[in-house]
Amino acid sequence: MGQFFYRLYPNVRVKFSLILRTPGIALTKEIPKEKLIEQLDHAMSLSVTNSEIHYLRGTDEYGARMFNEDYLNFLKCLRLCAYHLKYVGDKIILEFCCDWKAVTYWETIAMAIVSELRHREILLQMSRGERDAVFATGTIRLMEKIRILKKNPQVTFSDFGTRRRFMRSWQRYVIEILKEELPKEQFKGTSNTQLAMELDLMPTGTNAHEPVMVLSAIMGQNGNDEGLLQAQQTFLDEWWKMYGYGMSIFLPDTYGTESFLRHLDPGMAAAWKGFRGDSGDPVWEGELWCAFYKRHGIDSRTKLMIPSDGLTLPVMIELERHFRNRLHVSDGWGSDLTNDLGIKALSLIAKPMEADGNPTVKLSNNPAKALGPELEVERYKRVHQYHKHRRIECKF
Amino acid sequence: MGQFFYRLYPNVRVKFSLILRTPGIALTKEIPKEKLIEQLDHAMSLSVTNSEIHYLRGTDEYGARMFNEDYLNFLKCLRLCAYHLKYVGDKIILEFCCDWKAVTYWETIAMAIVSELRHREILLQMSRGERDAVFATGTIRLMEKIRILKKNPQVTFSDFGTRRRFMRSWQRYVIEILKEELPKEQFKGTSNTQLAMELDLMPTGTNAHEPVMVLSAIMGQNGNDEGLLQAQQTFLDEWWKMYGYGMSIFLPDTYGTESFLRHLDPGMAAAWKGFRGDSGDPVWEGELWCAFYKRHGIDSRTKLMIPSDGLTLPVMIELERHFRNRLHVSDGWGSDLTNDLGIKALSLIAKPMEADGNPTVKLSNNPAKALGPELEVERYKRVHQYHKHRRIECKF
Repeated sequence: MGQFFYRLYPNVRVKFSLILRTPGIALTKEIPKEKLIEQLDHAMSLSVTNSEIHYLRGTDEYGARMFNEDYLNFLKCLRLCAYHLKYVGDKIILEFCCDWKAVTYWETIAMAIVSELRHREILLQMSRGERDAVFATGTIRLMEKIRILKKNPQVTFSDFGTRRRFMRSWQRYVIEILKEELPKEQFKGTSNTQLAMELDLMPTGTNAHEPVMVLSAIMGQNGNDEGLLQAQQTFLDEWWKMYGYGMSIFLPDTYGTESFLRHLDPGMAAAWKGFRGDSGDPVWEGELWCAFYKRHGIDSRTKLMIPSDGLTLPVMIELERHFRNRLHVSDGWGSDLTNDLGIKALSLIAKPMEADGNPTVKLSNNPAKALGPELEVERYKRVHQYHKHRRIECKF
Repeated sequence: MGQFFYRLYPNVRVKFSLILRTPGIALTKEIPKEKLIEQLDHAMSLSVTNSEIHYLRGTDEYGARMFNEDYLNFLKCLRLCAYHLKYVGDKIILEFCCDWKAVTYWETIAMAIVSELRHREILLQMSRGERDAVFATGTIRLMEKIRILKKNPQVTFSDFGTRRRFMRSWQRYVIEILKEELPKEQFKGTSNTQLAMELDLMPTGTNAHEPVMVLSAIMGQNGNDEGLLQAQQTFLDEWWKMYGYGMSIFLPDTYGTESFLRHLDPGMAAAWKGFRGDSGDPVWEGELWCAFYKRHGIDSRTKLMIPSDGLTLPVMIELERHFRNRLHVSDGWGSDLTNDLGIKALSLIAKPMEADGNPTVKLSNNPAKALGPELEVERYKRVHQYHKHRRIECKF
């Protein structure tokens, strides 16, 4: 995504905000402001190392020479842009506003910092024995997952849990243990490129909602509904042009999977590897796709589904079983993998809010997850005929 | 070198041997055979990781795409070949015999294993206090070197000390401290590519005597003296063709620097970056080159000299001073950097002994360092007119 924004949209300005979706949490009381400032400032002092550039240049898992030298040079010189932080009542207001090509890197970093600081504070208030019990809980749950995974070798997954990890050190520990315990056909890799490099794992991941949200805001500005509707397709075409088959995983739910499939060219669906299911009932999502593939004579058994929405191991096992011999399922496992030590995790997100001054909108397959100003949400629903969507209830 | 052998000489068979040049040492009494077997077997179980291949693919410090995919695939599948080990009286006989493209990797690894095992045994016989004093000595000597280097920022160097390091962990510690203490204009990098990757340093190094020794043995077989004389030039032409300017450092002393310069094409000397001085008096070596450059109208101030023969800091300071404004000097610092803890280091080497059944020879600028069967050494001296060489005495 970084290269995509850098090469195609170098002059777009984007504002990101941190949003806490868990009710009843007073983050300002949980995380001392000076500690948050210290960590955000530290992140701004960092830059990509030469070894990391060197490693990225060698990336060929998704096609030869994935990153061009212009982009690698840009990345080498990149520093994170300034942040805007305010503590207002119970709420932490944390915003990042600068060029899209630079601001995009804040998402994962800001979320991981907030998550880690919160857990550090919780641990500080515990006795030594209580602290030890937290990590003991994490270890036991991890080993129990591994025991079940060994009995279910057909369930395969990647670590997608960087943003909401308990702590940096804990994620690393989890990944190290998974690598030692499971074959690489089952534990396929991690979306944390640094860990992939250091622990010799496959760097994995797919694109986020961000590109379509930003392109829709820009192409749909000044009430241009046609441009708004066109944005999704524009993104798909440009993404394919840049990366081809290697990175061809649809993320269909930005404005609802049904709207997405209504406009999807069957030729494109036949060419792309598969899709990620990031909201709504994953069984419903997979069934929609199976029906689409069937309707257009595409063999769904050659296609990959990557569920990634709040997965737990029972859901992963059930999804594989449900779609066996119809879709190949491989999971993007997040918080439940890297933040499962008995302390309730936050539902924290960091999303683009504005692009060149226009508000962004995300609908998703779950109406409760809709993001954006109310009037714009209504407009997007109308343009994407979102009302036609079936009621979605999660089975699990 | 690995890629060079793989791509140009895939079918040559080479025998490497470990040779101890320090007299009066009974290595068989110092290193238990079963421990040596354990480590050599372990080395044979290792392979290059995907992350390392990924990093190597990204190498562009010496020109874009230095390693091609064929070679990277070969490296990915490579395992170290079998070894032949015998304990005979005081002597350890350790030999490696297989395809050149595979056997070449044993040199550094075998030497580092022998060096580390010897030091482990020495430490095991010490009391805890004595052991602590060894590492304290190493730390104090390292910090004293750094103090002097800070006063002499004009002295620049790379770590060339992997083969003869005290221990793997000690080399890493030394390199970490150097990186923290010195600017990267002064501490330029390390020839240990793994450490370069992990510690974000420049991977450095130049070719060894090995290619010219092996090519001379092959091209000079069956008494072909003309082929023997031609081997050096053949190597230079092929090396330049493969790597160009990036890797263009002459190693002139395989059969004596004077013989080398007698045959060196001035156009080639003008094009190449510089030379490494690995035997004999480095002042004499540098003066020979300055005279050569001057005679052919080449500005020696644009040329790089890399002294690498048993360097110590006083020699490095003196060499820089002596050639200031005439040659750019940057040192390849070995044992004195990574194995200076008060325990006398061995003069251990691992060299090719035979190529396709023909004995190899190295003369060097120091007659005491000559390697090979007596009759062949005499033949090489005759062909390379080695008797014309001036008497060499080391000034330091």
